[in-house]
Amino acid sequence: MATLQDVAIGLDLGGTKILAALISRDGETIREIESETSKQSKEDVSMSILNTINRLLENDKVDRNRIKGIGIASAGIIDSKKNIIKFANNLGLENFPIGSLLEQHYHLPVKLCNDANAAAIAEWIWGAGRGKENLIYITVSTGIGAGIISNGSLVTGIHDSAGEFGHTSIMHQGVLCKCGNRGCLERYASGTAIVNTASQRLLAGEKSALQKLLNEGLEITNQQIAIAAEEGDVFSINLLKEVGGFLGTGVNNLIHLFNTEVIVFGGGVMNMSPFILPSIKEAVRGYGIFHMAKDVAIEMTTLGKKGGVMGASGLFFTNEATEEELALSHVK
Amino acid sequence: MATLQDVAIGLDLGGTKILAALISRDGETIREIESETSKQSKEDVSMSILNTINRLLENDKVDRNRIKGIGIASAGIIDSKKNIIKFANNLGLENFPIGSLLEQHYHLPVKLCNDANAAAIAEWIWGAGRGKENLIYITVSTGIGAGIISNGSLVTGIHDSAGEFGHTSIMHQGVLCKCGNRGCLERYASGTAIVNTASQRLLAGEKSALQKLLNEGLEITNQQIAIAAEEGDVFSINLLKEVGGFLGTGVNNLIHLFNTEVIVFGGGVMNMSPFILPSIKEAVRGYGIFHMAKDVAIEMTTLGKKGGVMGASGLFFTNEATEEELALSHVK
Repeated sequence: MATLQDVAIGLDLGGTKILAALISRDGETIREIESETSKQSKEDVSMSILNTINRLLENDKVDRNRIKGIGIASAGIIDSKKNIIKFANNLGLENFPIGSLLEQHYHLPVKLCNDANAAAIAEWIWGAGRGKENLIYITVSTGIGAGIISNGSLVTGIHDSAGEFGHTSIMHQGVLCKCGNRGCLERYASGTAIVNTASQRLLAGEKSALQKLLNEGLEITNQQIAIAAEEGDVFSINLLKEVGGFLGTGVNNLIHLFNTEVIVFGGGVMNMSPFILPSIKEAVRGYGIFHMAKDVAIEMTTLGKKGGVMGASGLFFTNEATEEELALSHVK
Repeated sequence: MATLQDVAIGLDLGGTKILAALISRDGETIREIESETSKQSKEDVSMSILNTINRLLENDKVDRNRIKGIGIASAGIIDSKKNIIKFANNLGLENFPIGSLLEQHYHLPVKLCNDANAAAIAEWIWGAGRGKENLIYITVSTGIGAGIISNGSLVTGIHDSAGEFGHTSIMHQGVLCKCGNRGCLERYASGTAIVNTASQRLLAGEKSALQKLLNEGLEITNQQIAIAAEEGDVFSINLLKEVGGFLGTGVNNLIHLFNTEVIVFGGGVMNMSPFILPSIKEAVRGYGIFHMAKDVAIEMTTLGKKGGVMGASGLFFTNEATEEELALSHVK
């Protein structure tokens, strides 16, 4: 049966796959399609995207008139005003006019945002930040990023680059980061940093169940560290707690700058390592300015990997979007 | 002759004085009054404020119908929704209902914000951030604070406490701050911190023209350090450059989080110490993520001490205020 609610198409463009979904205003996934990202050329990427959306629309569950638009969450540097992917290394794209491509094919409005912002929007509309005016989504995986909702709006900055939380320094004149800055949080608390730190310490001879892997010539991974911690390996537990402490310092900075209500964590490292979150909370309760930190909810996402695609469609369901529609309807 | 422009009353409530002014939409100060802040009791403060505004209005230069409202910039913790000063230590106030007090007396709309936010609004409407959507005002005096305009809106957070830039940590597990956090920027780069560091180093015997003052039993002040630096004292020059480096780390964090266009500095320490700003710029050009940092304007305020009172009146002249008026006029 056709849904009577408004829906939007969400598209999550990742380095290895495209996730597309039809999402209703109340957050229900009506249909979803996953396909491989082709990285041969711009044309290949275009074809992959169009094929994925075409497959998504090959069904009669939704009245086409109820589709509000196509929202895209993309990695890399985007321009949401021009709807262009300016540069996405892991997609092999430069100045890719995804907005005009999709508008021409589907005659629907298109909106674009980066992936961390999409996840924040999903949390805002349907997740842990539902009904809140101030919310920050933080992803900790290979790198660290954030999507920030402040006073009921997405913080994008002048060139859609806001939220580079992984490249805020928590150590004046600390370790040099590949971004050119020193002491970046990402150098201390990302998946990459955790593995580097563990490997260095193990090579220096620190005691750990992980030494066995090293002796077998295997590389250390975040998953192995997480498993060792769960099995009681003190080395791994302490390392993950330390990481929580670094993240806690960064989170306090966010709380002090944004006076936020909710911090939601996602990303591979956070999902596989339950020892990190309690240490973040400890740092916030211990060092955050009391009247700003005491009531901040600090939680794991419940939307999982669907945050990106949901948030992409959510670009058509925020209050801001609703106001735009209202304004347009007045003009009509 | 009466002005034909809209005007608003701005009020800057400081610990030692009240500054009140009638400001026109184009930023002209039509009249201003300064008076001492009485700190005996709530009633005294109320009387001081009412007397100051009464004196401001004792003239025929402005058609009363053209006064849009009374904007207040206050130190301390405020509640801009309830128009209450929740706690202002240097005014001796707790839960002071300044909004209802002034509404009852003058039958005008009242808006309230904190002093750093007011200064940011003034820069946004009339100063270095004119016409920009993204701007951050930073004050460096006894403490360090910021007012943040992001995507064309003032960032207040849930309880009007956003912008605690002085209490962002640039040193994980660094010096303990009185706020409870560790490594706060304010511990390294505020006027208080500069004097502390100078005193410690001088007592440890470092060579400086300032040793003379210490030998005479005088206390070191920021002004003396600034003067010594201007006169070529290497100790003082290096100290102020170092402070610029600390501030630069903090500023890079702001640029990476907000992707801002303009950073404007004010406050006593910045005004008296011209050696600081070049070091901040050096840190930003040296360590900021290139595509986010390269075009950011970093400037001193040109509004001086009037930023607070101008921004307070400016609460009635922002685009947001204009939209509110438009909405109200539709309702009418």
